[in-house]
Amino acid sequence: MRFLHTADWHIGKTLNDFSLLDDQLATFKQIEAIAKDRQVDAIVIAGDLYDRSVPNEAAVKLLNQLLQELNLADHFPLLAISGNHDSAARLSTGTDWFAYQSFFLNTNINDAFTPVTIKDTQFFLLPFFGIQEVRNYFNDDKIKNVNDAMARITTEMGKHFDPDKRHVLVAHFFAAGSKRTADSETLIEVGGLSAVTTDVLAPFDYVALGHLHNRNALNDKKVKYSGSPMKFSVSEAKQEKGVWIVDTAPFKAEWVPLSPVHDIHLLKGRFAELATKPEEALREDFYDIELTDQERIPDVLNKLREYYPKIVSLHRTHQAKQVQLNLSKKRAQESPLDLLTDFYSQTMGNDLTDRQKKWAEKALTQIMKGEE
Amino acid sequence: MRFLHTADWHIGKTLNDFSLLDDQLATFKQIEAIAKDRQVDAIVIAGDLYDRSVPNEAAVKLLNQLLQELNLADHFPLLAISGNHDSAARLSTGTDWFAYQSFFLNTNINDAFTPVTIKDTQFFLLPFFGIQEVRNYFNDDKIKNVNDAMARITTEMGKHFDPDKRHVLVAHFFAAGSKRTADSETLIEVGGLSAVTTDVLAPFDYVALGHLHNRNALNDKKVKYSGSPMKFSVSEAKQEKGVWIVDTAPFKAEWVPLSPVHDIHLLKGRFAELATKPEEALREDFYDIELTDQERIPDVLNKLREYYPKIVSLHRTHQAKQVQLNLSKKRAQESPLDLLTDFYSQTMGNDLTDRQKKWAEKALTQIMKGEE
Repeated sequence: MRFLHTADWHIGKTLNDFSLLDDQLATFKQIEAIAKDRQVDAIVIAGDLYDRSVPNEAAVKLLNQLLQELNLADHFPLLAISGNHDSAARLSTGTDWFAYQSFFLNTNINDAFTPVTIKDTQFFLLPFFGIQEVRNYFNDDKIKNVNDAMARITTEMGKHFDPDKRHVLVAHFFAAGSKRTADSETLIEVGGLSAVTTDVLAPFDYVALGHLHNRNALNDKKVKYSGSPMKFSVSEAKQEKGVWIVDTAPFKAEWVPLSPVHDIHLLKGRFAELATKPEEALREDFYDIELTDQERIPDVLNKLREYYPKIVSLHRTHQAKQVQLNLSKKRAQESPLDLLTDFYSQTMGNDLTDRQKKWAEKALTQIMKGEE
Repeated sequence: MRFLHTADWHIGKTLNDFSLLDDQLATFKQIEAIAKDRQVDAIVIAGDLYDRSVPNEAAVKLLNQLLQELNLADHFPLLAISGNHDSAARLSTGTDWFAYQSFFLNTNINDAFTPVTIKDTQFFLLPFFGIQEVRNYFNDDKIKNVNDAMARITTEMGKHFDPDKRHVLVAHFFAAGSKRTADSETLIEVGGLSAVTTDVLAPFDYVALGHLHNRNALNDKKVKYSGSPMKFSVSEAKQEKGVWIVDTAPFKAEWVPLSPVHDIHLLKGRFAELATKPEEALREDFYDIELTDQERIPDVLNKLREYYPKIVSLHRTHQAKQVQLNLSKKRAQESPLDLLTDFYSQTMGNDLTDRQKKWAEKALTQIMKGEE
């Protein structure tokens, strides 16, 4: 059989203040076209369908629309799991109904040991898990780390292997040996207790992973990250995005690249050099700018925005700390306030007033301080 | 045909600080038993499935479980709409898949004019709507109020009437002539621009309404509120809760009462009289207490809690203002903090620390002050 492997859609993600929903829809259309063109028998989505546990309404509508299109309109069987960015409980809404239409979405470790069989292949759908869930499942407190946990899980899955079938694991975790990308995952200890070593995954013919956004983070013939379908941060600016087309017999994994809808560019130079309009096609792209000027340029961010409306970060080679800090401080504050504002308007039915927003910002700043 | 009419489940609602999830599940079991016993052909749920636009994870799981049980396990066709407490976008997740299993959930006015036919009856599922949505749908800015809107809607629905069928409207609004109950709906203007007069609803053989929690709020032979299946506030303490069993031919609407799992009791008397344990079966019930003592009793709320662990409100006949105000002030503050705490733990994955909670409380108090 042949399937398409994608992951980390992060529907609803923003790049600083900029919504990516339109780009996410356009990127999805590329994935859909590839699936049709290559006549795949199923589509695997290895976790982080949403960017947040409580996605906003626009994100909920878009993801629902995309899944509807692939599954009910195009009739592709879907094999999906929840990632660490998803709320398993929220994402699980409707799963019992989905299964009647060959859309298999697993958000619960208890259901990871019942494979879904499509043609010659058994798919084991393992959602993102915490170690305690695995301890509970096996009633074994001696499981110390995620690698122990994964060893127990694969052994248990092995008991359900049909020897006449191929065996594919769909999972969402950090695989040891992979390089960490700075922005995509902040809670990972590299090579530490939270990594799974690839030897544990040897029983599978293929492991379709989600979690890391760079498909080159891991270099293994049968254990692969698809990476995210789009660049979601400046640290991903130089990555090629795409999907895997996997044939099970004979085994073959082929990389099919996706084109950026609005790319992220890293610019470095003097203000005088950079203060020129990019060609029309690149004007709505995202820009990370490093200014090499020695002298202070008043209101430089707004001046640059005339040329590059979507600046996501601005650094200065020579006065680095100051400007950069201001931006990243702003970013750190904006995100929870944005969440709270969103949350308030959705639960209360009206927006925070400016005065309320000021108070909320103050409170959140204090909360974040209190965290350290 | 025969169907069961219920509404206003408000899954996830709390009575002050007390979760009602267990009571909601137990009440659901009664509804399910009635549906089986009376062998209904369908179950109508007329809006407000959730209590909030962003329900917490436990509420999401419970509603999903209840609908799964009725539809996929018991094989009842379901006919449901979103109410004003639901987020239409969030609730709509999965609807396209639900429809394959005869679970018809409409959250969009655009889909209200395509009836669902079951046996001899056409059901028109009209979600809660804002007037602007109706103006947009008919491209008519002259629609002034909800009654105008509803007149346009029923005329349009009439065009899709099959004359050989019965016609049932499922809707969620305030019907003129109904009495307002104090706590259940706070945004309603009685008899004002936001009420629908029952003459507009004449074309239908039955109108299954949700919105008001008291089925006696309206007294009409064919336009009925089912009310909520449980008492959700002290103002509902004396209401009988239940469901309608409706036969279409010959027409008959029969009221079937539900038993309170934990009832709400209104007590009035002197402290010395009330300070006595209720019988065991009533101990976990909810209590609204009015104290008639003239003299001040120190720490009276905690003293009373020894006898009635679930006091939801406490008044004093003679020093009314003081105590009552403290409680209601507390309640007004608790609810947003509860929301924020919930929100934080779900999005951040861990609870607010006590210090963070203190800051959040302070900020929210200021926000609420800013509202006035």
